[in-house]
Amino acid sequence: MSAFDMIELPDFAAIETAAARIAPHAHRTPVLRSRSLDALVGAELHFKCENLQRVGAFKFRGACNAVWSLSDTVAARGVVTHSSGNHGAALALAAKTRGIPAHVVVPDGAVKSKLAAIEAYGATLHRCAPTMAARDEAAERVRAETGAALVHPFTDPRVIAGQGTATLELIRETGPLDALIAPVGGGGLIGGSAIAARALAPGMAVLAAEPEGAADAFESLRRGERVAELAPDTICDGLRGLIGPINFALLKTYAVTVLPVADRDTVAAMRLIWQRLKLVVEPSSAIVLAALLGHHEQFAGKRVGVILSGGNVDLDALPW
Amino acid sequence: MSAFDMIELPDFAAIETAAARIAPHAHRTPVLRSRSLDALVGAELHFKCENLQRVGAFKFRGACNAVWSLSDTVAARGVVTHSSGNHGAALALAAKTRGIPAHVVVPDGAVKSKLAAIEAYGATLHRCAPTMAARDEAAERVRAETGAALVHPFTDPRVIAGQGTATLELIRETGPLDALIAPVGGGGLIGGSAIAARALAPGMAVLAAEPEGAADAFESLRRGERVAELAPDTICDGLRGLIGPINFALLKTYAVTVLPVADRDTVAAMRLIWQRLKLVVEPSSAIVLAALLGHHEQFAGKRVGVILSGGNVDLDALPW
Repeated sequence: MSAFDMIELPDFAAIETAAARIAPHAHRTPVLRSRSLDALVGAELHFKCENLQRVGAFKFRGACNAVWSLSDTVAARGVVTHSSGNHGAALALAAKTRGIPAHVVVPDGAVKSKLAAIEAYGATLHRCAPTMAARDEAAERVRAETGAALVHPFTDPRVIAGQGTATLELIRETGPLDALIAPVGGGGLIGGSAIAARALAPGMAVLAAEPEGAADAFESLRRGERVAELAPDTICDGLRGLIGPINFALLKTYAVTVLPVADRDTVAAMRLIWQRLKLVVEPSSAIVLAALLGHHEQFAGKRVGVILSGGNVDLDALPW
Repeated sequence: MSAFDMIELPDFAAIETAAARIAPHAHRTPVLRSRSLDALVGAELHFKCENLQRVGAFKFRGACNAVWSLSDTVAARGVVTHSSGNHGAALALAAKTRGIPAHVVVPDGAVKSKLAAIEAYGATLHRCAPTMAARDEAAERVRAETGAALVHPFTDPRVIAGQGTATLELIRETGPLDALIAPVGGGGLIGGSAIAARALAPGMAVLAAEPEGAADAFESLRRGERVAELAPDTICDGLRGLIGPINFALLKTYAVTVLPVADRDTVAAMRLIWQRLKLVVEPSSAIVLAALLGHHEQFAGKRVGVILSGGNVDLDALPW
């Protein structure tokens, strides 16, 4: 029996509570359609545009839910996290909406524009080496020094519940769908998405797109146990993290299918989304369209929810 | 008394009719907000996202209204127009929705991606020299040869009424606004927008953004008569046309204020929209934000409707 058999997984009620909690702060993002992308995939695609969320990513939902879940006393000491980008910006902004301090540990090598965003929202940056161990250690040090509450980017159940609100909104708008696809990195988004999808439409297939160069979730499911080592090699900077333990449990509980995707296909899909949907999305978002195109036979004629997770890219370093 | 004193200007009823006519074919585009752009301008901005319209531009509204206004007998012979881009694609797709032929006269030097789109929608391309005289002449020749109905890109009252439906949707969603801004090239969009805005909110200021390098509408209003010559020099490829006679009449009737904008400011605004709104917009759209930033003092604290007209850009030739 592992330690995580005892962890209580977030449930649908937690997602409904999160939705009410973040409503005053988060955008209700639009759901867009594209006849030309429908024709390319051979399915009916409903794009939930989290690139249009505040801070340009779904991450604001989870961070906002965590920040507004804290008691006044705890909140007053601030929040801390480690993040290579979007979660850091999200936590910084969420903290700002509550008027409390935010500390963000950032690994060397993170995308410059994402670091600038974190600072612009008023957080204090703390640099560390680009390994998960160094990130955890640095965050723990800041926590001990400041008394700030740790808001982990993807294992925190409040974060997972917050991320699930995107799918809640999507399905309440479109009605039941045949399938849902979201990217998987640490697994906060896909975890929350799976909970919401199955609660609202029990027969729905839930799929995750993962870079071939960071396919630890795929490999973990194949082996039946969580892979705990990874040397990521992918253009998808938001998906370089290892799947978290609670997140892996959610993948198994909800029978999520992981589809590995080559970076070259992700870049082509990114260009397609920019051209056809007129949306700026980052590689970590475009990967879902690449997965749909690569496995189009299994989506033929289906109504598919597609979470476009974020749009924070360096406009001076486009991958084509 | 000029010939155009006798032309009947389109009215609000024509816009309401157009809205009902195009509803089965056109997208109802979302209205987006951005707190960071609000803060930069110092106003409350409501972006009507016509870059998310079919064919990636508001032009589909006018073309669709014109095509579906034709009697079956006339429609059967097809439609013809001249266009450097978005209107051609829009008419091609509108014709396709009705199952009739479309002919598009395209001037040499038009943006390659836009020509590819016109052909992809099934229209027949006819090339001509890049002058308005050559365009008119070539379109007239095709009309005479085929019997196709001419749908002029901006002087056709059915087109103007169709373009006005974007503002109709916008104000019905946001309620009355203090001001509305749209780009001006030939003047189909600003003409229709002004009619809709004043009918729904009589006190609303209506403004147009125009490239300094193609500022014939600005100059026409200054002189009190329509400038009929122009050697356009601007990155805004959708705004290189001369203001049309009926369109000029609408500018005067509705007291539209034209704000000239330098291309360098348009490019900076385009980058801002991509970064902050996560929307792909073309220079001819971004010009409106540049105008707002350049004249922010007159918008201070106001609720402003902003028409983002289109998002058809060559991703391999971005202007930064």
